[in-house]
Amino acid sequence: MTAPLQIVALLFPNVTQLDLTGPAQVFARFPDAQVHFVWKDQNPVPTDSGFSIVPTSTFQEAPQADVLFVPGGAGAFELFEDDAALSFIAEQAAGARLITSVCTGSFTLAAAGLLGGKRATSHWASLHMLEDFGAEPVRERVVRDGRIITGAGVTSGIDFALTLAVELYDESVAREIQLYIEYDPAPPFDAGSPSRPEADQQAVKERIASVTEHRSPMVARAVQRLR
Amino acid sequence: MTAPLQIVALLFPNVTQLDLTGPAQVFARFPDAQVHFVWKDQNPVPTDSGFSIVPTSTFQEAPQADVLFVPGGAGAFELFEDDAALSFIAEQAAGARLITSVCTGSFTLAAAGLLGGKRATSHWASLHMLEDFGAEPVRERVVRDGRIITGAGVTSGIDFALTLAVELYDESVAREIQLYIEYDPAPPFDAGSPSRPEADQQAVKERIASVTEHRSPMVARAVQRLR
Repeated sequence: MTAPLQIVALLFPNVTQLDLTGPAQVFARFPDAQVHFVWKDQNPVPTDSGFSIVPTSTFQEAPQADVLFVPGGAGAFELFEDDAALSFIAEQAAGARLITSVCTGSFTLAAAGLLGGKRATSHWASLHMLEDFGAEPVRERVVRDGRIITGAGVTSGIDFALTLAVELYDESVAREIQLYIEYDPAPPFDAGSPSRPEADQQAVKERIASVTEHRSPMVARAVQRLR
Repeated sequence: MTAPLQIVALLFPNVTQLDLTGPAQVFARFPDAQVHFVWKDQNPVPTDSGFSIVPTSTFQEAPQADVLFVPGGAGAFELFEDDAALSFIAEQAAGARLITSVCTGSFTLAAAGLLGGKRATSHWASLHMLEDFGAEPVRERVVRDGRIITGAGVTSGIDFALTLAVELYDESVAREIQLYIEYDPAPPFDAGSPSRPEADQQAVKERIASVTEHRSPMVARAVQRLR
């Protein structure tokens, strides 16, 4: 008998909930795994989508993670000023087999000092700013560098989690989960990434400009603190 | 000024949470829409993935839906014996512009008497049993019949919700949301549906057999009650 795999997923206010819930659906089918949804306390945590999720554990009570997982969203940037959250991430990461994120969760890993010199991805609108942390931004859906695995924006969490299934188990486990969640996507448009032909280029430009304007001062302060 | 669009999403114990949270991420970007996550009371509702979601409204307090939405999961079948839930669905459906579901949420619509003679879809492992309710099972990712729109299993909720964006708004709104959630899927295998080459056919057979064995008596009782 080996101990169950411990997955520690960070939950925080204003998380882009699908960054978390997409992977969580896949994790729920991992053989012999325990998943913990962790925040400072166990009060319901408001997400970006109008509902709250209840943490299952606190920073103090969470076990050491085999897999540390950080989702993204506007709230991921608010964690830059949150010493308790950043310390929790750094301490868990030190003992984890895999350190992972989806979407702008990679920025929280970066703010915790974990991405210097590493190849990593993020949501397309924020990706370029990873460079400010000394990381190498990579425009791919799932990026691995050693024990760090990062996923791109929001829905890429499903691809990320199935990739994780292959890494932790094997291809047959991943294929069976993919079948169970009927992940045979049929997007109505070819518009899911800035490079796609049906993507609205004006919307792309505006979003990158808006994200850069709002988030680059937060990134600059976080980079400063890491020095 | 028109009133905001009211989306009423049913929340229930043992929901397959991605059936709900995938669409919810898309709904959160609908212009001028209010989304309600509704159950009998506002205590946290346990999902199938190890965490609970807090309802935002109750059956009594929910507004009349413009769009009624029912996700699936093991808990969707438990609602067959739940008069309060079935009455709520039937009453909301009577006044709704669109009646919708993802995954086996279509069975809950059927148990509420809403799918007789209608074309509809569901999770692949349960789909055949829709026929017992007098519906016409259709193996497509998103199926529309009049004011009823049903999605297939779990992850099809994202395709469903983007389809809904086109119906309620226009293609540019749907494309912009698709870009925002970076829905440019890259499944690691071609295994997401029973007909796909990398799908494990033994797993398909076993799952259909297991689902049929456990759920067909529940379906039979629900059909009986509708007579």
